[in-house]
Amino acid sequence: MNRIVIYILLFSFSKPSFAQPQLSLMPWPEEVVFGRGQMRLTGDFTVSVSQNATDKLCRYATRILRRIDGRSGMFFKQETVANDRVNPNAALLIQTTRPGLTQLGEDESYHLRIENNQIFISAETEIGAMRALETVVQLLRVDSRGFYFPELTINDQPRFPWRGLLIDVGRHFMPINVIKRNLDGMAAVKMNVLHLHLSEDQGFRIESKIYPKLHELGSNGEYFTQEEIKEIIRYADDRGIRVMPEFDMPAHASSWLVGYPELASAPGPYEIETGFGVKDPVMDPTSPVTYVFLDQFIGEMAALFPDPYFHIGGDENNGVQWNASQSIQKFMRENSIANNHELQSYFNEKILSFLQKYRKKMVGWDEIYQPGISKDIVIQSWRGKDALFESAFNGYKTFLSNGYYIDLAHPAINHYLNDPLPEDHPLPDDKVGNILGGEATMWSELITKETIDSRIWPRTAAIAERLWSPGYIRDEREMYRRLDDISIDLEELGLMHLRNQDVLLRRIANGQQIHALKELIGLLEPVKGYERHNRGVSLTTHSPLTRLPDAAVPDSKPARDFRFLVEDYLQSGEENLRQEIFNQLMFWKEIHKKLEPITVRAPLAEDALKYSRDIESLCAIGVQAVSVNMLHSQRWKDEVSMLLDAVNREKRECEIMIVGAIEALVKVAK
Amino acid sequence: MNRIVIYILLFSFSKPSFAQPQLSLMPWPEEVVFGRGQMRLTGDFTVSVSQNATDKLCRYATRILRRIDGRSGMFFKQETVANDRVNPNAALLIQTTRPGLTQLGEDESYHLRIENNQIFISAETEIGAMRALETVVQLLRVDSRGFYFPELTINDQPRFPWRGLLIDVGRHFMPINVIKRNLDGMAAVKMNVLHLHLSEDQGFRIESKIYPKLHELGSNGEYFTQEEIKEIIRYADDRGIRVMPEFDMPAHASSWLVGYPELASAPGPYEIETGFGVKDPVMDPTSPVTYVFLDQFIGEMAALFPDPYFHIGGDENNGVQWNASQSIQKFMRENSIANNHELQSYFNEKILSFLQKYRKKMVGWDEIYQPGISKDIVIQSWRGKDALFESAFNGYKTFLSNGYYIDLAHPAINHYLNDPLPEDHPLPDDKVGNILGGEATMWSELITKETIDSRIWPRTAAIAERLWSPGYIRDEREMYRRLDDISIDLEELGLMHLRNQDVLLRRIANGQQIHALKELIGLLEPVKGYERHNRGVSLTTHSPLTRLPDAAVPDSKPARDFRFLVEDYLQSGEENLRQEIFNQLMFWKEIHKKLEPITVRAPLAEDALKYSRDIESLCAIGVQAVSVNMLHSQRWKDEVSMLLDAVNREKRECEIMIVGAIEALVKVAK
Repeated sequence: MNRIVIYILLFSFSKPSFAQPQLSLMPWPEEVVFGRGQMRLTGDFTVSVSQNATDKLCRYATRILRRIDGRSGMFFKQETVANDRVNPNAALLIQTTRPGLTQLGEDESYHLRIENNQIFISAETEIGAMRALETVVQLLRVDSRGFYFPELTINDQPRFPWRGLLIDVGRHFMPINVIKRNLDGMAAVKMNVLHLHLSEDQGFRIESKIYPKLHELGSNGEYFTQEEIKEIIRYADDRGIRVMPEFDMPAHASSWLVGYPELASAPGPYEIETGFGVKDPVMDPTSPVTYVFLDQFIGEMAALFPDPYFHIGGDENNGVQWNASQSIQKFMRENSIANNHELQSYFNEKILSFLQKYRKKMVGWDEIYQPGISKDIVIQSWRGKDALFESAFNGYKTFLSNGYYIDLAHPAINHYLNDPLPEDHPLPDDKVGNILGGEATMWSELITKETIDSRIWPRTAAIAERLWSPGYIRDEREMYRRLDDISIDLEELGLMHLRNQDVLLRRIANGQQIHALKELIGLLEPVKGYERHNRGVSLTTHSPLTRLPDAAVPDSKPARDFRFLVEDYLQSGEENLRQEIFNQLMFWKEIHKKLEPITVRAPLAEDALKYSRDIESLCAIGVQAVSVNMLHSQRWKDEVSMLLDAVNREKRECEIMIVGAIEALVKVAK
Repeated sequence: MNRIVIYILLFSFSKPSFAQPQLSLMPWPEEVVFGRGQMRLTGDFTVSVSQNATDKLCRYATRILRRIDGRSGMFFKQETVANDRVNPNAALLIQTTRPGLTQLGEDESYHLRIENNQIFISAETEIGAMRALETVVQLLRVDSRGFYFPELTINDQPRFPWRGLLIDVGRHFMPINVIKRNLDGMAAVKMNVLHLHLSEDQGFRIESKIYPKLHELGSNGEYFTQEEIKEIIRYADDRGIRVMPEFDMPAHASSWLVGYPELASAPGPYEIETGFGVKDPVMDPTSPVTYVFLDQFIGEMAALFPDPYFHIGGDENNGVQWNASQSIQKFMRENSIANNHELQSYFNEKILSFLQKYRKKMVGWDEIYQPGISKDIVIQSWRGKDALFESAFNGYKTFLSNGYYIDLAHPAINHYLNDPLPEDHPLPDDKVGNILGGEATMWSELITKETIDSRIWPRTAAIAERLWSPGYIRDEREMYRRLDDISIDLEELGLMHLRNQDVLLRRIANGQQIHALKELIGLLEPVKGYERHNRGVSLTTHSPLTRLPDAAVPDSKPARDFRFLVEDYLQSGEENLRQEIFNQLMFWKEIHKKLEPITVRAPLAEDALKYSRDIESLCAIGVQAVSVNMLHSQRWKDEVSMLLDAVNREKRECEIMIVGAIEALVKVAK
């Protein structure tokens, strides 16, 4: 099959030459060739593994069977997919060549064919088969006759081998069930690395049997037991997902020092941090005590986590304690260590030797790079693509996180267009392979187990697609169309990203009706970047993350849909679009009046009035802008521009997301 | 304080003599004496334990602190309640006399006083203090000035010492996070026994280290590890909740026999049951093999569960295998055992001896009673109050579950008015103490982890009140008013009873808008009792419980509110109520038209049309009935009666809940 033909097929969803179904696959496969027929779904649907039916693959297939049954309500007769009976006539037949291992670079490719009322999956490994099974679930379609699978052929494989999600359980702990449901979400979009950020200034989140004061004194009682870690690893492995631990050192380490102040570069005592940002406490890289401790500790953790990659953090050491320590300064002079970066390199080399002893490969943030360090290390780039390419150019394996910071509340499209290896990348061919992929990072300053899913999903599915699918798949509207569908699919895995918004709103409304609040929150997003920390409230680990900016979600669909509507109108000038904009604005204009009554009995909802009042004004301006009977004088334009600017300048914890679209309407108003 | 004065105060919420706040306490305390002032909530709110600050109580108080902060968004400065510092000026000051033990009959009483801007809790045990702290959270009120606590004095203690919730993890397994969030829900309404029904024909749900084929072959891989059981017990104990295990024997035992067919009364092999109802497989009570096994097994489990009460089930042995076994019949003849009941008694006596050896008290369903059995056993009554009183009269401790079968989808009021010890009970004074309380039973034929919470909550809060509060607290409207408030409070504990309905509806709607479906589902409830099994679908352990009757919840609020509205109108004849009924019916009449378009792309929503079409007719009838311009002839009445009868006779999986109210309107139409 010729690549160009496939490309045309890929982008012909909207205007098919024959009755080609609109698919909501995400990530989009490398090759899709559409057929003409359909395979109707019935209660007789069965699944069988015809070759190499491992327990793991059978369990996966059973879950897929139940999910399809749950969506369709078909009452499948088959209970489980078992490895003791092969049914060659099964509706879904799976064959693999070997089990495969949950490890970096394992073959995840698959071939999937639907024809003659049979779905046929073939894959080198069971992990490839798992990826194919997720595609099958996404392929389930509906028409007026019911559920069906479209006839087609898919050949698929990932573009990058490292497609990760970092969850920071340090700043706000996330219990095992949060981790598990997110592992299910990752599997659904074919991600394959869970990066657990296990230690932070704000908490040490794993049980250590040899240094128990780490978790006992370094957490508020919230940490994973080793049994739980084993269960997380087993659960992830069952889904072909690696689990990489991170223990941030030498900085971001306050929580270690509460129980073991002897590791620190300054005398204690230390406390668990409750504020955020870069803190001073840092391990003492000149003390043998530190290395005895870390050798033992790394040994314990290396045995617990089977993955060969072991993340040591290494970021954001501000050097304050090192600069202030006479003994450290003396050590540096005596050992000709010129600066803190070199001192940290000295520390890293020690750590690297421990890791090598335990047969682990060192992973760290950009800061761990130094000339001459072993080529065996892997660098996670938070600084950006220049750093990424430099590492790759210097012969280091590396993966990208800059641009995938999902905690910063940017829209999915920003992450989606952030390609670790864009067409114009500067790397020579023999270095391209050093770019392993990327990782979305869910830092947890401002999230709780109640809100975390709404910060990860659905946007992370767009990152998953960037890391799996060919680079030329990058249409914004098409991505969002599929993202909205996938978002609802993800709910069946127990993810809370959609359902929990109402919970927060009901609490904010003090149990009253939430219709108006829900209309409002659709037009708001939490402010982007790190701006929430500068909006008049002091946010700590124990702040109530139960307020309006917590209920608001990044990349809110109503505001985004309105933006698209305005874009379409400005391009086409079509009257029906103008009318749609008009109606929408007239509807949103009323939110304020509807909200006022409930705020009397709901102090937390009072905040909403500031936004709804502005939205009332914005909508009035928008209505005027699209009004055909009104002459839009320069004076009117100047006046409303001032108003729009004023709204933009408001220092609040949420942004009103329709300002840009209104501005665009004003700009072209005649 | 005189009981009559209190009684008057209790029932004067609606017409207070001074500005007395409407409270949403549930269970309602034994004594409430209202003051006149208010304690305003500020960010300076602090909590301190002034005496006997155990870790457990401090953890509990910290959770309460965070919940109040989450509700109010106050940004409390205090991070945790610690036992190393006492603050006598704390806004909430707690003192206890001793820690207390999580065991039957432990003192749970407390005294709570709010005055002079301080909340003061005093309790004999930390468990009493925990109950008080839940009362504090429920006392948080809102007025136009913000959050406050009303000044008052509460003296409270439970009416019954055994206030349980049974969760059947046998038929559908429920993972540990489901159990944990329900433990939080139980604590919020002061329940104190979690009864885990751990073995069933459909699954053996706990790891046995000495008989591993129990969980390995007797479950589909879904069971609690012993580590998880320990964690459940720890979590429950942290909340003053006992955990009682149940291993159902000798019947309901298919899952044991898959791995150990030698225990059975008929030759194997056995399979895990997927259908429901009473099954034949039963243990062989005549074989020494059985007793060696059970002795060892009970020993293992007795060591795992610290609670002295150990439930052996004992219910629903149909005797089929015993009747068919020549060797068993021979054994009965040789040992002068007259019938199967006597044979089971013989079995029970053996089990009792094992339990006594391990210092456990035997608990079982009604069937375990036999004349002469040790007075040390406890009988759980599923058969009804006659059985309950008979057991109590005969000197046995007993508690009620008949009438608390929350799986049967009856309204909360039915359970609420079901008093284990009604005023007209027949027991002599010295036997009254044998009635320990009751247990709601969440049998799991028709629930999944997605729907279980909506079957337990909020209705179980009404049962919790019945078992905690004085018997004379039994006003229906007042109960429902508080129940609706508590329902929303329970969400903050992670309970899914409200939020998951939308998830099911979005899936049913295949991702389309759910407004109309949501309006419809508010008027539907799953059919009551065991009727869903007779409605044309064959329900098994692996049926898709993702359809309309699963999204529908028992005791639906919109239908109930309409019933109250119609009752009020029929009593008062007030024109504004008539108008309200008219508007409501006109609104619901439109559901059908709104639903039709979405069903084209949502096969599972098609089912909804049958209901919405009937609702359209019902509303039309209702509108006619309350129409003042219409003469309601006998012929009209006869015609609509036939129509209403026809709707009532429909054999569907849901019931339309407004039929009764419409019938009442028709009856009085002139």
